[in-house]
Amino acid sequence: MTKGERKRALRGRAGRMKGGRGSGRASAGAVRLWGRHAVEAALKNPERDHRKLWATREGVASLDGELPEDFPVEYADVADLARLVAKDAPHQGLVLECAALEDVYLDDVLTGDPHAPLVVLDQVTDPHNVGAIMRSALAFGAGAIVTQDRHAPPESGVIAKSASGALEHLPWVRVVNLARALEQIAEAGYWRIGLAGEAEATIADALPAGPVALVLGAEGEGMRHNISGHCDALARLPINEAMESLNVSNAAAIALYAAATRA
Amino acid sequence: MTKGERKRALRGRAGRMKGGRGSGRASAGAVRLWGRHAVEAALKNPERDHRKLWATREGVASLDGELPEDFPVEYADVADLARLVAKDAPHQGLVLECAALEDVYLDDVLTGDPHAPLVVLDQVTDPHNVGAIMRSALAFGAGAIVTQDRHAPPESGVIAKSASGALEHLPWVRVVNLARALEQIAEAGYWRIGLAGEAEATIADALPAGPVALVLGAEGEGMRHNISGHCDALARLPINEAMESLNVSNAAAIALYAAATRA
Repeated sequence: MTKGERKRALRGRAGRMKGGRGSGRASAGAVRLWGRHAVEAALKNPERDHRKLWATREGVASLDGELPEDFPVEYADVADLARLVAKDAPHQGLVLECAALEDVYLDDVLTGDPHAPLVVLDQVTDPHNVGAIMRSALAFGAGAIVTQDRHAPPESGVIAKSASGALEHLPWVRVVNLARALEQIAEAGYWRIGLAGEAEATIADALPAGPVALVLGAEGEGMRHNISGHCDALARLPINEAMESLNVSNAAAIALYAAATRA
Repeated sequence: MTKGERKRALRGRAGRMKGGRGSGRASAGAVRLWGRHAVEAALKNPERDHRKLWATREGVASLDGELPEDFPVEYADVADLARLVAKDAPHQGLVLECAALEDVYLDDVLTGDPHAPLVVLDQVTDPHNVGAIMRSALAFGAGAIVTQDRHAPPESGVIAKSASGALEHLPWVRVVNLARALEQIAEAGYWRIGLAGEAEATIADALPAGPVALVLGAEGEGMRHNISGHCDALARLPINEAMESLNVSNAAAIALYAAATRA
C-alpha cells in the first residue's frame, strides 16, 4: 500500500467531520468509541461521520494508516482519556467521537444467501455479549444481526470494543417487533433455528442446507415463548448436564461455526 | 429431594465455617464471590471453606436448597451488597466470602480420557474470558483448565461469576512453567493442538481421535513462540478474512465443540 492509499484508508467521510475542542462529553446523537480495533475500523468506515479523536501520540502511531491532515485530533495523556470513557475502559490511547451509524432495514439484508446466516437476538442485553457476537458473526460471514429495539443495548463504546471492528461492517438491524421480523425472515426463505437447552435435536442435526437464521435468547431466561413459537426448529448444543447453559456469545459462536461447517 | 437432603445440599463444610460481623473487606486468603450461580455452586461445594454470606432475603430465597441453621448469614440491602463487591458487579443479592480453593496438580488431571480434553491458556488475562472458558470447558466435559501462575488472573469473584458455577467443578491447574507442563501433558499421551490464525489446518482436520489438549493464547498476541513450539499441531478456526480473530472465550468454545463432536 502506498502512503497515499494508507492515508485514504483512514479518511472515512473526512469532508463531513465536525471538530473543535469539546467539553469531554459526547454530544447528542454521538457515540464515543475506544480501543485500537474499534477506532481504526470506525475511521476507515466511509459510512461514519467522525467528529473528533482524542488520542495519545502512541495511540495515533498504533493506527494502521494515517489520519488526514485536517482531521480534528486532540492529543491527550492516558489519564485524560480515561475520563472520557467508561470506568476502566481499555481505551488503548484512542477515543473517537462520531455519529451513530444509520439504520439498516431488514429488507436490505434478506439476501437468502445460505453462506450468510442471520443472527437474531431476543433480549440479549449485555453489550459485551452483543459485541462479541457481532465479532463472531462477521468472522463466520453472517449477513446481519437482528435485535429488538426495546430489549437490546444501543450502539456504544462497549459494544464497539467487544466487536473489535465488526460493528462497522456487520449490518445491525434493529426492529420494533421481533416476532414480525421472524415472519419476514421466513417469507424470505430462511429456516429459523432457535437455540434451546430443552430441544431434542442438536444444532448439527437441525441445520438444513439452505439459508438459516440462528435465534438466541438471553441466558437463563432463554427465548420468550412468542419468539420460540416463531422458529421452524429448536436445537440444543451438545453440552453435558454439569452446566445448564453457555455464555450467550459462546453459544452463538458455536452455532455460527456449526452453520459454517455443516456438511 | 427431602428438606433434609436439600439442606445438606447447601451445607458444604459448614463445620469449618468462620463467621461474625465483618468490616466488609475480604480477609487475607479469602475470596469474595457473588451472583446466584456462583454462590450456589460454592455453597454446595464440599471442598470450599465458607466464611460468611451477606445477602438480601430475596437472594437467599433464590437459592436452590436451604442454608444450615448455623450458617453465618448477614442480611443486607442491595446497596450494602454493592459496596462489598466490584463496582457494578451483578451480585443478585448474594455475596459469599470463602477461602480460595486448594491447589490442583497437573498429575491429578492427566487421565488420558479422550472425552476429557484439557484447555491450556497462555497469558489469557481477562477474568471474564477465563471464567467463560471454564463454563464452556465444564459444559463440554473438559478434564481441566491449565494456566501459568504469573500470566493468569487469580481466583476471583469476576471469574466465578463468569464461570457460572464451573469454578467449583472444573479442576484448575496453575503451573509455574507452562512449557514444562506441555511436556508432561505430551508424556501422558495427549495430542497438543495450538490455536493459531496463521495455521494451515482447520481445527476439525487437526483433531485426532485420542486425548487432546487445546492450547490458546491471548487475543492479538497469540501464543508465545515457546508455547506454540510445544504443540504437536497448530490449527485455525475457519473464519474469513474480515476478522483477524475471535474473542478468546468464543474461540475456546468452538474448539471444545469441535473436539466433542469430532467424527
